[in-house]
Formats: sequence, structure tokens, C-alpha cells
Amino acid sequence: MLTSPALFLAEIRPGGATTFAQVDPSAPHVRVDDLGVTRGDGIFESVAVVDGNPQSLRHHLDRFARSAALLDLPAPDTAVWARAVADAAAAHPPAPELLAKLVLTRGVEGGDAPTGWVHVFPAHDYGSQRTAGIDVLVLERAYPSDVVTRAPWLLQGAKTLSYALNTASLRYARAHGADDVVFVSAGGDVLEGPNSTVLARFADRWVTPPPELGILDGTTVGRAFAWAADRGDGTEVARLRVDDLRVADAVWLLSSGRQSAPVRSLDGVPRPTDAALQAELLHHLLTVHD
Amino acid sequence: MLTSPALFLAEIRPGGATTFAQVDPSAPHVRVDDLGVTRGDGIFESVAVVDGNPQSLRHHLDRFARSAALLDLPAPDTAVWARAVADAAAAHPPAPELLAKLVLTRGVEGGDAPTGWVHVFPAHDYGSQRTAGIDVLVLERAYPSDVVTRAPWLLQGAKTLSYALNTASLRYARAHGADDVVFVSAGGDVLEGPNSTVLARFADRWVTPPPELGILDGTTVGRAFAWAADRGDGTEVARLRVDDLRVADAVWLLSSGRQSAPVRSLDGVPRPTDAALQAELLHHLLTVHD
Repeated sequence: MLTSPALFLAEIRPGGATTFAQVDPSAPHVRVDDLGVTRGDGIFESVAVVDGNPQSLRHHLDRFARSAALLDLPAPDTAVWARAVADAAAAHPPAPELLAKLVLTRGVEGGDAPTGWVHVFPAHDYGSQRTAGIDVLVLERAYPSDVVTRAPWLLQGAKTLSYALNTASLRYARAHGADDVVFVSAGGDVLEGPNSTVLARFADRWVTPPPELGILDGTTVGRAFAWAADRGDGTEVARLRVDDLRVADAVWLLSSGRQSAPVRSLDGVPRPTDAALQAELLHHLLTVHD
Repeated sequence: MLTSPALFLAEIRPGGATTFAQVDPSAPHVRVDDLGVTRGDGIFESVAVVDGNPQSLRHHLDRFARSAALLDLPAPDTAVWARAVADAAAAHPPAPELLAKLVLTRGVEGGDAPTGWVHVFPAHDYGSQRTAGIDVLVLERAYPSDVVTRAPWLLQGAKTLSYALNTASLRYARAHGADDVVFVSAGGDVLEGPNSTVLARFADRWVTPPPELGILDGTTVGRAFAWAADRGDGTEVARLRVDDLRVADAVWLLSSGRQSAPVRSLDGVPRPTDAALQAELLHHLLTVHD
């Protein structure tokens, strides 16, 4: 019988040999002394599964491996993880949009193996944000733009389980009447959202900020760039200042689950959105697989 | 039969009514979709239990409640948590030094109740660090000194489960031949260690940095200050620059588990320690209860 959600738990042996087995998602599987919970000491990826297809899986797994390296975690066997994502997606009752969450923690304190799982569950319904757009606050991330090279111990650029400030930023935005956040560095560079990548359009040029600012290398923006290039537009990974966002022809936040959401206001100031372009972009993101 | 460690799991009803029950610590009790593990979205306290006495419990519980407020978590019923700490400590086989970890998470995503527990287990053996001292690196925390008021969404001053960068900093220190870390703000103010409070002695004056810098209000330093005052020395909560640490008569890192550890080198430069004073301070911390 298909259960919903589908949960596949890893057994990772010293040395890295990994197998997955399906378990009951409503039962607890994590010990209270797992460093993933006591220290947020682990990494994750969220992969959209659209019409049964895990999107940008290779890119997600590459980033998962890079995050593991940044945290000195054992390298995940990405081929085995890819199979687990496919198996967990297949084990879930079919749905147009699912999300697969991949988690790897440092394991139980004092133990000799990391903890890991793949959890597939229905995606949120982002219909209205995709169509009507989102109100966004610009909030300080308060790190210098060269934090990655200057202070690698701060783990910027790794997708860790230590996301309390990301969720706190979203709560702050909601308490102030907004839906989402764009972080800006102490140096005034546009960074990313708490769970998203910034994409700005200036006429026929599409721009997203560079990972060397200590932000994640977005998976969705790669597919958006492929679409923009197909249109004959230019794409660029380049620094943006907050003022650039205020004069862009349009701004989007991209992420695996929500795909593309047009920014309809920035710090309370209305921004133009383009419904036809958003429909076209979203259609591409939801239908073209890689 | 006494089990070791002792684990008491909370049942927290909507509205906050809380009861604890003892459970098997070797079994998993946390679901994979608990926000404590997927987002590090929760708080904790580590309370030393010395000769059966939970130390500075009132102070820890006050800080636990302040952290909950900073994260918009339901206020913990501190009287019930205090009883759970006492019960869990009593349920553990007697030992000179135990640690009680209190954890409160936002609970399962989409659920209506936080998750919580009290976990009592034997403390690490810090004998050699207490006696021989520790080698410390000064590392950038890369936030401005006014981060708390300027960017409350960054949760500085809350003791959250999102501690990956704290453990990464300690790994960085160990990879560079040191034992521990002192963080410094972008403005050059001495902050705290990843798991500790900084205490510096200048002749008969003892100084620790102020919580308004976005650091934790240390529990152990309160007891150290009481001891220093009993000696007739002055105690002060005041800003320190890194250079102040380099000229202090002695520097300690204080924490619940290790209590007091003298800093014997800072960025590779030997610093004087005072074995007699450390012995006296440690004896006070381990014997005087509050």
C-alpha cells in the first residue's frame, strides 16, 4: 500500500556504504542526541518532484555534496541518494507537485555514523503567490560580502539545518505585512531570500547574484536562465545593489517548491510584474525537466 | 531500574499545559519533519548537575523563556520544566558531574504543539582543560556590535538549535591546533565562545562582555562574579577589545559543563595562567550551589 508521505531512512556504514529502507513517516526516527537536532549540525536539499520527475536532481546532489564538504561530513554517495529519491517519489501516491527533502546529519553524538533520510511529501499550494506575486522586505544579513573567504567557519554557502534565522526572518516579514525577504550584505550587495534565489530582469538581460557572496548556487535559476537564453535574452551572474532591484523591470524569487514568484512590492513600494512573462516562465519551470 | 542517560519527554498541549514522562533514551523520539531538525528551529539550555544539584537552574530557565520569546515559541512552563530537570537528574545513576539538556522545538511542521525534552547524561571529562588550560583562536563572528537591535531576525542572544557554525568554529580551531574559540564582532568587540562566556581579570577587576552585543547572558559568570566579589575584587560587565584580552592578567572561558577553563594561549601567543586562582575558582563553581 502506498503511504503518504514516503520516508526512506539511510543506513550509512563507516566508510560510507549506504542503503535506504522505507519506514513509517508518522513514527519518530531521530534520537534526541542526534547532532542534527541538538546542533542543527547537518545539511539538506529540497527537490521538486513534478509529475514524478525530480527536478535538477544532479545539481541538487552536487550542492548536497558541496555542503557536506563545507561541514566536514562524510561525502554522500550521490548515486545511492539519487536512487532513494526516485524510489521515495515512486512510493508516494502520484501528485502533480511533490517535494523530496534530503537530510544528512552528523549523527548521534559519540556515534560513528551520520543520519540521513529522503522524505517525499505534497508541496504547499503556491498558486496565489505564483499568480498574484509576493510582498518582499529587504533585511540585513549583516555579513560582509567577502564572508565566505574571510570567515569560512560561518558556513555561508552551505545549506545547513541551522535555519532558525531564515524562519525568523520570514516570521518578521509576515509580522510586518509581507510574504518574503531578500537579504542584503553589510556591504549593500543583494544576496538571496531565506529559501530562494533572486532573479532580476533589466530589459532583455536577466541577472542573479553570485555564490561568492556566500549564498547558495540556486538550482531553479539555472533552468530559468536556460529559458531566458532560449528567448534570445542575455543572462548574467553579477552583483546587484538594492537600488538595482528598485529600478529593475521585474524581480522574481525562485525556489524548488514555489518555482517562480513575482515580487509585487519591495519594502512596501509597488513593483511592476508581468503576468504573461511569469506564466511563461512558470510553465517552463514546471514542464521542462533536466 | 535506573537507566543511563535519563530522558524525560514533554507532552505540551495547545495552551501550554505540560507534562513529562520518562522514556527510553536509546529509542528515537523525534520525527523527521520536526522543525527542530529540519530548520534548527528551537532552543536549548545545558545545565550542570553537580552532586545531584542542577546549577543556576533559575537563571537557565529564565534564559530558556527569553530564547522562546525571541523565537516566538510558546512560553515554557518553567516550574514544570524545573521539576522535570530534578526528576531526570534523580532518575540518573548518581555521578559527580552530569549535564541536563533542555530542548524545546517548534514541533512537527503543520502540527499544533512544540516538542520538548530533558536529557540527563554524564558530563565530558574536562579535567585536563581545567588544569592545563586551553589554546584559543580569535575568530570573526562578522556581525556589527549592534546586531541585536539592528537585525533582531538574526536571533543573536537567543540560544537556538541552529548551532552548526558554533561547531564548525570549534572544528576550525582544532584543525589549527587550538582547543576553543573567542568570537569578535565586525566592530572589534570581544563577544563569547561558541559554547562559553569570556571572563578577563585585570588586577583586582573581573570583566565580561555585555549581552547587548548579541551574546548570551552567561550563567556561570554570575557565580564567578559572586566568588570574585567575596574576594573583595571588582566585577564589571563591559566591552572588551581583542587587545584587552592580550594584556589581561588572565582570561577564562566559562560554561556550564566545563565550568572554568584558563586560556593558556591566544592565537598561538602564550598567556599567563594562575593555577592557584583557577583551582579556587573551579572549587567555588563546583561546590557553591544557587
